[in-house]
Amino acid sequence: MEDAGGFSLYDIQWREEILPSDIKEIREIILSSGFFTKDETEIAAELVDERLLKGPASGYFFIFMEAAENLSAYTCFGPIPGTKSSFDLYWIAVRDDFRGQGLGRILLEKTEKKIESMGGSRIYIETSSRDQYIPTRNFYEAQGYRAEAVLKDFYSPSDDKIIYVKTLSIT
Amino acid sequence: MEDAGGFSLYDIQWREEILPSDIKEIREIILSSGFFTKDETEIAAELVDERLLKGPASGYFFIFMEAAENLSAYTCFGPIPGTKSSFDLYWIAVRDDFRGQGLGRILLEKTEKKIESMGGSRIYIETSSRDQYIPTRNFYEAQGYRAEAVLKDFYSPSDDKIIYVKTLSIT
Repeated sequence: MEDAGGFSLYDIQWREEILPSDIKEIREIILSSGFFTKDETEIAAELVDERLLKGPASGYFFIFMEAAENLSAYTCFGPIPGTKSSFDLYWIAVRDDFRGQGLGRILLEKTEKKIESMGGSRIYIETSSRDQYIPTRNFYEAQGYRAEAVLKDFYSPSDDKIIYVKTLSIT
Repeated sequence: MEDAGGFSLYDIQWREEILPSDIKEIREIILSSGFFTKDETEIAAELVDERLLKGPASGYFFIFMEAAENLSAYTCFGPIPGTKSSFDLYWIAVRDDFRGQGLGRILLEKTEKKIESMGGSRIYIETSSRDQYIPTRNFYEAQGYRAEAVLKDFYSPSDDKIIYVKTLSIT
């Protein structure tokens, strides 16, 4: 029985269905990270809203991770329109008081398996070059993502967009 | 009085308002190019639909070019959420029987001026590495866009995404 900090991994519940209450929970998770602006938080919430309205046709898919009966982390991802098998990972966020316990890694691996099962072969993640994101970038690199492209000054002067990619080994 | 092929440039009408009839017209323009799949055509039409539903809050802006009383070309563009002043040019298309007369260049320049007036300082265009797009890429390069990044196999094996950018000189 593997242990992830204060609770057993056997207590983790996975959910892919979206509930209207997720919008509020996701806002909380994203705000708790202290990383994102109010605008960015609204963008994350809009993706849930879009999914609730349009279902799978929205192109947005979610994996929710519940630990100790709390929504503790989630990913939002989907196939990139116009591509054969490329997926975007739009969001991965872990609630602040659940961080540092390896949940992000478990969640990302679960998400990669799901993407593979949906026919995906490449996963793209976009992030910022700001120092604030060094731990985030280290995390992606440790999980096998490599920085394939840099768009200089994309977000604002001296704030580049870095595009990471991971090729899934179809077995 | 400059002449652009069979009609005078003085006959060109510009329009930024979106009409419900534009969905049908845009489908025709895009299909007439012979470049795009049915799926891609539907994506282009959806952006018009989204704009009709949500107005400027959709994030999609358009410039329509009417020549000889026909909708002959259009661009769709908008600010990239989460960036200070970066814009995407989502679509530029010229109706097949109006091509080769320099309308694309005039339309793109008009669009760049509009983006500048909206506070934009960088314009991104994404395109495919397929040979079919060589004239398209030559056109962007002639207009001052440079290929900043390549995402290998993005669209499908051996079909890369090329990201072009042009920095607007704010005067």
